[in-house]
Amino acid sequence: MHILFPKNSLQKSVTISLRAVPARTTMSILECILIDARSNEIKFTTNDMELGIETIVEGTIYEKGLVAVDARIFSDIIRKLPDNDVDIHTDENLNMTITCEKAKFTIPGRTGDDFTYLPVLEKSEYITVSQFALKEIIRQTIFSIAANENNKLMTGELFEIRNGELRVVSLDGHRISIRKLFLKENSLNKKVIVPGKTLIEISKVLSGETEDMVNIYFTENHIIFDFDRTTMVSRLIEGEYFKIEQMLTNDYETKMVINKKEFLNCIDRATLLVKEGDKKPIVINIEDGSLDLRIQTPMGSMDERIDIEKEGRDIMIGFNPKFLMDALKVIDDETVTIYLVNAKAPCVIRSESYLYLILPVNFSSVR
Amino acid sequence: MHILFPKNSLQKSVTISLRAVPARTTMSILECILIDARSNEIKFTTNDMELGIETIVEGTIYEKGLVAVDARIFSDIIRKLPDNDVDIHTDENLNMTITCEKAKFTIPGRTGDDFTYLPVLEKSEYITVSQFALKEIIRQTIFSIAANENNKLMTGELFEIRNGELRVVSLDGHRISIRKLFLKENSLNKKVIVPGKTLIEISKVLSGETEDMVNIYFTENHIIFDFDRTTMVSRLIEGEYFKIEQMLTNDYETKMVINKKEFLNCIDRATLLVKEGDKKPIVINIEDGSLDLRIQTPMGSMDERIDIEKEGRDIMIGFNPKFLMDALKVIDDETVTIYLVNAKAPCVIRSESYLYLILPVNFSSVR
Repeated sequence: MHILFPKNSLQKSVTISLRAVPARTTMSILECILIDARSNEIKFTTNDMELGIETIVEGTIYEKGLVAVDARIFSDIIRKLPDNDVDIHTDENLNMTITCEKAKFTIPGRTGDDFTYLPVLEKSEYITVSQFALKEIIRQTIFSIAANENNKLMTGELFEIRNGELRVVSLDGHRISIRKLFLKENSLNKKVIVPGKTLIEISKVLSGETEDMVNIYFTENHIIFDFDRTTMVSRLIEGEYFKIEQMLTNDYETKMVINKKEFLNCIDRATLLVKEGDKKPIVINIEDGSLDLRIQTPMGSMDERIDIEKEGRDIMIGFNPKFLMDALKVIDDETVTIYLVNAKAPCVIRSESYLYLILPVNFSSVR
Repeated sequence: MHILFPKNSLQKSVTISLRAVPARTTMSILECILIDARSNEIKFTTNDMELGIETIVEGTIYEKGLVAVDARIFSDIIRKLPDNDVDIHTDENLNMTITCEKAKFTIPGRTGDDFTYLPVLEKSEYITVSQFALKEIIRQTIFSIAANENNKLMTGELFEIRNGELRVVSLDGHRISIRKLFLKENSLNKKVIVPGKTLIEISKVLSGETEDMVNIYFTENHIIFDFDRTTMVSRLIEGEYFKIEQMLTNDYETKMVINKKEFLNCIDRATLLVKEGDKKPIVINIEDGSLDLRIQTPMGSMDERIDIEKEGRDIMIGFNPKFLMDALKVIDDETVTIYLVNAKAPCVIRSESYLYLILPVNFSSVR
């Protein structure tokens, strides 16, 4: 094999490929990039058995061939090469020589014989969204998946397509995040659970531009993201997702509109007085025209009042500050509307396109 | 006590003060900032018993007083306050109330009774240098102090003033770094060892501007850095510094001039093939007109040639790549001149203002 790449496009493709290289594995072939230049284009493939990535690389083929190389060593070398054309050549023993200006590396390659190729799947059912929208949807929901694997379903996100709308849901037992996106002319009906890890990796590769599109295909056991010249294929999580409809209600006793940044900064300041790992709640007192946040810990006390618009009953309610902040941080609106029922019922931050439900925390009155 | 600060100047002073607050200590008073508003100016003092800092803070005194507060909690609160005037008030029990816009914090204060004040020292012997020069000198020598305390002298830097010149030396048994600075009209003769930790902290506070000056005072057991409205006092390390003159010679068998960036990048690339912790040397072959660097490890091999100007004998010599890179990284010149004697003698990178001496490493020939 003998191929030539401009360094920048090579580096970009290697970076994308690395997203599906596992950090630790006992199968060394999974740590490889498969470089396939057997046809008229050069394709890099990586596969960690849950997520697989294929990306087409801009380059010139002088001699066709196929080789697998350790992804991290290859990536490190490419990254540190001068900014110029990179010549890659393999000999009959699959030793790969990488030459750029006067620097010449030789690393061992291997055959692709035991490489796990991506599954060949039928691409019939799909939706199209912008890379910007998909990246935003992931950012605005991914924080409330569960971190540990005790409940596999909670480590993924529900992607539900119905009535021309994509609804993405994540939950971890303490809170629920929902983002909705209107789809143009789409009659698909689908409900799948996508691994959170997949979404995190995809989000890092997406350009975030509104004019760049992604096709998302759905098959029996896989979801496929097709964009630019890259295909990312992920297994789905099997099982029936949680019934969340019964937890969602439009009833409320108190409704308030508050400046998002003021509220976020105020909670952030209050958490200064809470030691990490300490689960002390913050207590919020909502009255006509103002919200009062007080906290008292062995480190000190804080008291802050924020102007709000409020309808309905006065209420005092406690929260884990992290859960409130996580939601407020990803909301881009200047003001948020929050609905409350009582001190033991969830609070809901809601707009047309998103819904964040957060369970309150019991508190021993601090006054 | 009742004082008022603009948030920015308060935060700047707190950040400076934190540099002398120990990360871990059993004496909780050392974790405090002493806020002294007993006279007509407000002074913050911190002291970790090796380094002490006094800084004058811009602010208004409504009621005089003195209080010590936990430096980290105080700093965290100030940092997260809105960007506006910060009002600080203590009551008769030394509880401190910090108010900024609508946010109000209360934290416990304490008397300064057991606070260790900075020593009162005679400021007679001194030099003046620019903050830029001092910051550069520290950056260009601090990397070759010894990290562990086995040899206390090696954890500091020699500051030697003689013949109107400041010479700063650091060494760790494998290498020596020397930086020289010409002093205007100065007849002082001094030789002291300054703790490396002190220099690292000072370097973080220095502005780095050529027009801002620092007065450096020398006393029996202390060094004092006076700049802007801040005084940093450090203990000196006791003892007799190493005699380095006998290790320095102007004799050489080979002299080469090389592009610094090319050389640095080339070594950097070679280290890709060396696992962390592995002490494999890089081997450099110097011939007329070119330097050839080769490395071969289980991960692969690299070979690179760089154009040089060379006088004297050909030579092949091995180095710990980190030591060469550390020196090359801090040199600002475009080309460096390197002097060599033989494969077992130190190599010297030298100009008028700096000298870096690096011991070579034995290597089993790779060819």
